[in-house]
Amino acid sequence: MDNGKVKLGLIGLGTVGTGVVKVLRDFENIEIVQIAVKNLNKKRDIDNLDTSILTDNPIEVVNNPEIDIVVEVIGGITPAYELLKTAISNGKHIVTANKELLAKKGEELFNLANEKNVVILYEAAIAGGIPIIMPIKTTLAGNKINKIEAILNGTTNYILTKMEKEGVSYEEVLKEAQKLGYAETDPTGDVEGYDSAYKITTLATITLNQRVDINNVYREGITKISAKDMKFAKELGYKIKLIALAQLTQDNKADVRVHPMLVPVKDCLASINGVTNSVVLEGFPVGRVMLAGPGAGEFPTASSVLGDILAISRSLGTKELLPFMKCNHTVNAQQLDIEETINSYYISITASNTPGVIGSIGEICGRHSISLASVLQKGIDEENTAEIVVITEKCIEKDINNAVEELKNNPSIVRINNLIRVME
Amino acid sequence: MDNGKVKLGLIGLGTVGTGVVKVLRDFENIEIVQIAVKNLNKKRDIDNLDTSILTDNPIEVVNNPEIDIVVEVIGGITPAYELLKTAISNGKHIVTANKELLAKKGEELFNLANEKNVVILYEAAIAGGIPIIMPIKTTLAGNKINKIEAILNGTTNYILTKMEKEGVSYEEVLKEAQKLGYAETDPTGDVEGYDSAYKITTLATITLNQRVDINNVYREGITKISAKDMKFAKELGYKIKLIALAQLTQDNKADVRVHPMLVPVKDCLASINGVTNSVVLEGFPVGRVMLAGPGAGEFPTASSVLGDILAISRSLGTKELLPFMKCNHTVNAQQLDIEETINSYYISITASNTPGVIGSIGEICGRHSISLASVLQKGIDEENTAEIVVITEKCIEKDINNAVEELKNNPSIVRINNLIRVME
Repeated sequence: MDNGKVKLGLIGLGTVGTGVVKVLRDFENIEIVQIAVKNLNKKRDIDNLDTSILTDNPIEVVNNPEIDIVVEVIGGITPAYELLKTAISNGKHIVTANKELLAKKGEELFNLANEKNVVILYEAAIAGGIPIIMPIKTTLAGNKINKIEAILNGTTNYILTKMEKEGVSYEEVLKEAQKLGYAETDPTGDVEGYDSAYKITTLATITLNQRVDINNVYREGITKISAKDMKFAKELGYKIKLIALAQLTQDNKADVRVHPMLVPVKDCLASINGVTNSVVLEGFPVGRVMLAGPGAGEFPTASSVLGDILAISRSLGTKELLPFMKCNHTVNAQQLDIEETINSYYISITASNTPGVIGSIGEICGRHSISLASVLQKGIDEENTAEIVVITEKCIEKDINNAVEELKNNPSIVRINNLIRVME
Repeated sequence: MDNGKVKLGLIGLGTVGTGVVKVLRDFENIEIVQIAVKNLNKKRDIDNLDTSILTDNPIEVVNNPEIDIVVEVIGGITPAYELLKTAISNGKHIVTANKELLAKKGEELFNLANEKNVVILYEAAIAGGIPIIMPIKTTLAGNKINKIEAILNGTTNYILTKMEKEGVSYEEVLKEAQKLGYAETDPTGDVEGYDSAYKITTLATITLNQRVDINNVYREGITKISAKDMKFAKELGYKIKLIALAQLTQDNKADVRVHPMLVPVKDCLASINGVTNSVVLEGFPVGRVMLAGPGAGEFPTASSVLGDILAISRSLGTKELLPFMKCNHTVNAQQLDIEETINSYYISITASNTPGVIGSIGEICGRHSISLASVLQKGIDEENTAEIVVITEKCIEKDINNAVEELKNNPSIVRINNLIRVME
């Protein structure tokens, strides 16, 4: 920080890194000293980029004594983890958009940062451009937040929105999304819910104020949602969304999970369409607060990276770093197993068209302490089977699983098409 | 701050003040030293309140040398203005929920605070429990925000929501809202848009980064919105909301105003119902971000007051106060006159049922450079008049006013029922 400028080292010059370089041009007191890239010869979409500051050896950046803040936007564990450990050990502050790293190695990195008296900020890692981490740590700091319901992955929300609006299959929309660049060639990280699980792990840790272990976060993707499920949900007054959820049970266990849910159309999360992200927080004394905005993209993500850089820059001048920038969770959450969670359920059933089949379903559910809230029977098809859709009252997941096993073995039931949790 | 505790003085023990006292009980390092109340003998909804700290002389609070932070929750200019000036002069930090004071006396108070090296925080003054001021000053600090569209008054949004859902008149809903305590006996401050105007004045100042003068903020309330307007708007795909708007024109003028608007049902603000508030920000690089939540009430407001108290408390320990907590607007905004603004318009017309009346309307509008986007003609009534509803393309407000004057004088037109601006 000689010549009065804050010195940055940037690791990664992909979409987000490029955005960061572009937006930082308006900030004269911040200088990018060095940028680590994979390929020195790649053409970059940045006017007048000073290529002399590029290096293909990221270790140079984390060891560069000139640099105050290392901005990491490469993602993944290797080599980001080792690089950031070195950077922190060298006394550098960190700004990162790496949700996977935070979810898997957060404890270790934050402990090291506290030891070295530096901070790790990560606004961009969760819900892109939406201000969420800083509000939780400042304006909402006095709250006890006991529930988060969020849409944290733009790709899956785009796919589900398209399926709902156009009545088409998952596979069809995925293909189109891949063509448009909204989904990757290997879409697993998004569609199987890994990306959302990383994000909710960190978000749950700071809001519930207990360290959440990603290995105990239940995760289920959207690949089994059918066009029919969308249609039935709509008829019943719901949309289907991939929800990242974190809540405290009455005995203070952390219930953290990612899976599709039927969301009532009146709930504000139902109106979050396309690639938009949204986080709904419930706490005391604030009540229910919703934040929504662009969850990804060059510029929205750069906005959050920039906010973190500015926050650190301001405090570089002072002797003491603000305690609220540090992460210091001493309690490991006791996490609820998915079998112990309490939910309502949507069950889509194909049954033979025999009288009394709905009665049988009700009887089997009842035997497992499950009440039915509504039943929808759809037309009989040429195979003389009927589509029956059931919404249950709240019950324990292990009971619904047992009931579904029994339903499968009932002679009147051809198959269970899907079982999806329902938001209140 | 001896004995390690932060010492608060509270001015006002109404709804918000009571909430603040209740929530602060969980914070052992913050002590309320003194509370100024109007009536010492009034029964309070607070368990075990230590009445020895009550005073009916608020000057004692602002002069109390023990106190670090004065929390003002009485509202209005007198006596809050003089009290806070004294408190600031005495070197006390301020937390206030007083939107009127900030809008009318903000410049003077912030200047004095800067001079005395104290801060004034006011998260609770704008949109209640929604974190909005702090996110703008931290996470979004690197953005150039060029537009805010917001619903900042819960009472009017409650009334408009009821009118829309139940098809009833403004007067009817107002009466009910007054009975339920959602509207005051004299509802002027809310229904005529004053409350929203105070809030958007401060919000526009910090987001557009120019000092906005409340005297140049155009303001129009909801009292002229009829059940018929609601119905027509719905048929055309809109809801009617009281919108607080602030935007920068291309030549950097500030267009800041409060008035009802037709909001497209697909816009996220259309789904903000009841007493909920919402702020939509548009800026670069972030794009469009929405925040929504409880805009008033004992606990939500206390949440924001608490966040501000905690922010100041943290920095009391350090020698330097964070610059981002200060307000320092050196540029006075050049504010756009309402006549110069550009909008689309909804015009509700009662016309005699003569052929060619729609042609006449189109011709008159055309002569004032106004194109019609859509025209809706409703049934003929017993007086042989027709209801015609027009939505115009974007045009300059003075042109629409001239056109409306001319329409009024046209023999085929019985009356102009309403003219309401339309959101894109």
